Amino acid sequence: MTTERRKSPDTTRRSEASRRAILTAAFELTGEVGYAKLSIEGIAARAGVGKQTIYRWWPSKGAVLFDAFLALTEGAEGAGEQEAALPDTGDLEADLKTVLRATVDELNDPRYDEPMRALNVEILQDPALAAAYAERLDGPMKELKKTRLRNAQQAGELPEGLDLDLAIEMVWGPLRTRWLERRGPLTHAYADRIVETALNGLRPRPA
Amino acid sequence: MTTERRKSPDTTRRSEASRRAILTAAFELTGEVGYAKLSIEGIAARAGVGKQTIYRWWPSKGAVLFDAFLALTEGAEGAGEQEAALPDTGDLEADLKTVLRATVDELNDPRYDEPMRALNVEILQDPALAAAYAERLDGPMKELKKTRLRNAQQAGELPEGLDLDLAIEMVWGPLRTRWLERRGPLTHAYADRIVETALNGLRPRPA
Repeated sequence: MTTERRKSPDTTRRSEASRRAILTAAFELTGEVGYAKLSIEGIAARAGVGKQTIYRWWPSKGAVLFDAFLALTEGAEGAGEQEAALPDTGDLEADLKTVLRATVDELNDPRYDEPMRALNVEILQDPALAAAYAERLDGPMKELKKTRLRNAQQAGELPEGLDLDLAIEMVWGPLRTRWLERRGPLTHAYADRIVETALNGLRPRPA
Repeated sequence: MTTERRKSPDTTRRSEASRRAILTAAFELTGEVGYAKLSIEGIAARAGVGKQTIYRWWPSKGAVLFDAFLALTEGAEGAGEQEAALPDTGDLEADLKTVLRATVDELNDPRYDEPMRALNVEILQDPALAAAYAERLDGPMKELKKTRLRNAQQAGELPEGLDLDLAIEMVWGPLRTRWLERRGPLTHAYADRIVETALNGLRPRPA
């Protein structure tokens, strides 16, 4: 019983190596063949594991891809424990432009485009995955955005009563929609224009 | 040859009746069983036609659903030829609130919610359907929105240099995203807040 319940260091290391190989395979294959043709068989073959190993840990290819994104995010944060934060130079407009330009670069990267699009479409169709996404990926990211906007409120750059969820939608929504629906080119100039329009509003401002 | 190329009035009438029965069946069934369980077989059975009749006219269930929406839009415009237009009372803010509140009511209607969501997800995955959607549904609707915004520009309510595509995204995007991703309740109060925030911007305005 003990051996079943407590894994030896070797087993843990092997499991972790398999897990990483599976996540890498899922991410790369989605970029190469597209999500529609991604299969558990294909992931298993690329990762050098049996299909049952994947099914033991994940219920669907969407779930594998989701964890691949989580691993990527944790990787980007270094040790996976550090808190990321949005830039805060005291100039909200400049900082939001920095953030949106970086997002433009990421969305234009072919390695990320197809897997991210696939994950987004999958989320629209799978409530369980949507809940996991909201809790583990979108939620924490949204908190970082809110923190930056709250700092701007304290600095007097934004009004106190602002609906922060709606503000986030105004700043980040147009870029996301243009990307997801392939409505037009994603450029730094477009990123800048979004930030300016969201902050200033459509109506003319007195000079 | 002539009889094959020119249909008799009776044949045309029967074809049109079948076509309408198929579109109605596709729309209703999507609302009842969900898009994932919608099948050509199911549509055929409900419409009282053979499967081959459907496959002769449409390549996929997504294409049937798309035409069902087109038929609905044409129905709403009366004879199908009349130009619809957005309200123009000379008060842009009031008019946009009227339009967004009507959209809220539509999105909250369970008869439309599931079919519209299914169509939107399908469009993200099917470039041919996306092109047809852009040309026949989204494009004409966008022209109506632009016409209303241009009128506001001429009336001095909006600046001349405004990016109208981005303006449309700021006004209509947040509601669409909240609906598509089920991020929160769709209410008239939310519709009003979107319009006010998009027009005035996030930054405080001098009183």
